Amino acid sequence: MVGQFRSTLEESERRRGSRIVLALDVIAESKEKILLKSMQILEETHKYICALKINHHLILPLGLFDGVKKIIEKAKDLELPTIIDCKANDIGSTNRVIAENYFKAGFDALIANPFVGWEDGLQPIFETAKRMERGVILLVYMSHKAAWEGYGQKVYDPFTGTIKPQYIIFAEKALAWGADGAVVGATYPEKIGEVYAILGERVPIYSPGVGVQGGDIERALSAGAHYLIIGRSIVESEAPAEAARRLRDISNKIIDGLTRKGRGSRP
Amino acid sequence: MVGQFRSTLEESERRRGSRIVLALDVIAESKEKILLKSMQILEETHKYICALKINHHLILPLGLFDGVKKIIEKAKDLELPTIIDCKANDIGSTNRVIAENYFKAGFDALIANPFVGWEDGLQPIFETAKRMERGVILLVYMSHKAAWEGYGQKVYDPFTGTIKPQYIIFAEKALAWGADGAVVGATYPEKIGEVYAILGERVPIYSPGVGVQGGDIERALSAGAHYLIIGRSIVESEAPAEAARRLRDISNKIIDGLTRKGRGSRP
Repeated sequence: MVGQFRSTLEESERRRGSRIVLALDVIAESKEKILLKSMQILEETHKYICALKINHHLILPLGLFDGVKKIIEKAKDLELPTIIDCKANDIGSTNRVIAENYFKAGFDALIANPFVGWEDGLQPIFETAKRMERGVILLVYMSHKAAWEGYGQKVYDPFTGTIKPQYIIFAEKALAWGADGAVVGATYPEKIGEVYAILGERVPIYSPGVGVQGGDIERALSAGAHYLIIGRSIVESEAPAEAARRLRDISNKIIDGLTRKGRGSRP
Repeated sequence: MVGQFRSTLEESERRRGSRIVLALDVIAESKEKILLKSMQILEETHKYICALKINHHLILPLGLFDGVKKIIEKAKDLELPTIIDCKANDIGSTNRVIAENYFKAGFDALIANPFVGWEDGLQPIFETAKRMERGVILLVYMSHKAAWEGYGQKVYDPFTGTIKPQYIIFAEKALAWGADGAVVGATYPEKIGEVYAILGERVPIYSPGVGVQGGDIERALSAGAHYLIIGRSIVESEAPAEAARRLRDISNKIIDGLTRKGRGSRP
């Protein structure tokens, strides 16, 4: 069953004709400038993106219920779903507090790290999300250089006696736990392909890391990424609207090409 | 070499005769009540604890540079070191922003998840901590029920061809990366012992999970825990000062006993 968050996001994707999730990672000298620049970029780019992702870049300097809530409210006015990229990885009681606060502030979905496990770990986040009709997206393979150390390590499975990559275990958990999305870095397109082979269309793949981090849009989408998470290439551009529009057009052209090749609804 | 944070904490431990780190996880109906209750508990308990740990329980409702900064400043007035338990696990550029914000707000140390790896992962956190003379504490084995899923899993080491528990790999990283502390749940005293066998006195073990979560103080200290992280047993007590004093006295009595048994400076 597709939950509320996935429906909302799919609707936004159709309406705007975009699969770009803007990572609003704004850096500036003061709280006031961060808020102002964030609002400006959101205003300029909202037509070209399908969702907004917010991280500690804004939460820490602005405060969740002060500055960040203003940005969430603006996104709501623009009918743009919002995702908090807090990479939750605490014990259950704290994870519940984290989820309740972010959802109360208005976020539609939350990113969590499946490394923490289920019981007294991510279970309260999934329960809170279900109760409040929000989404949970799990990290499966991150975009940075050292991702091999954790996400790429080989893990012994005591049940089958086999050795499996960590990200395969995480992809299986995303499916078993009913996650609304899985994050796999565009910098590792072969991993996107392996994860897509497990998830198919049941759990959409969100792919960060194109642009500044070196990931390639065509390879990520061809491998099975559904959404592209893009931050610095838009936020640090001289012309954010132009950058967002160009990235949306490039990705749409690639998706059209893939669809024509008979890849059906994929990627 | 023992860094600034470790020296400050050891000095606080000696001066107050306590190894209790208070986890100030306050829950209340409003922002104002959370701040008021946090300040009250800090005021009442500061004589019986050696450091203060703050988590999202306060960061999210109060805001880092608004309410939480007031608590940090009060802790500074009381000469009490502060630790932010943000369990950082992001990519390098974001981790740097996280560390800079928390250290700028006044925290003396930050807790991070070694699962994220070094290059473009935790490296910027260690660099920022070094530059600003703060500490980094790594998660090695958490206190919750599902900790076995991630922290307890068996990992294949391609260099030696052997299979190692994840927490042993993390303990080795804490040593190799020069961490100022390692978190191992009191709910798993046998894991504390295994980690202590690797770290010895070079990296002190912080142990959460006594009290509400079921961990036993004597078993944790005997196994090698140096600091006890205690939250709900103090914060949710009818008499927080009394609870903190009692926990300090119990732990000191156990440490005296261990020292008399000839365990030297350990635990």
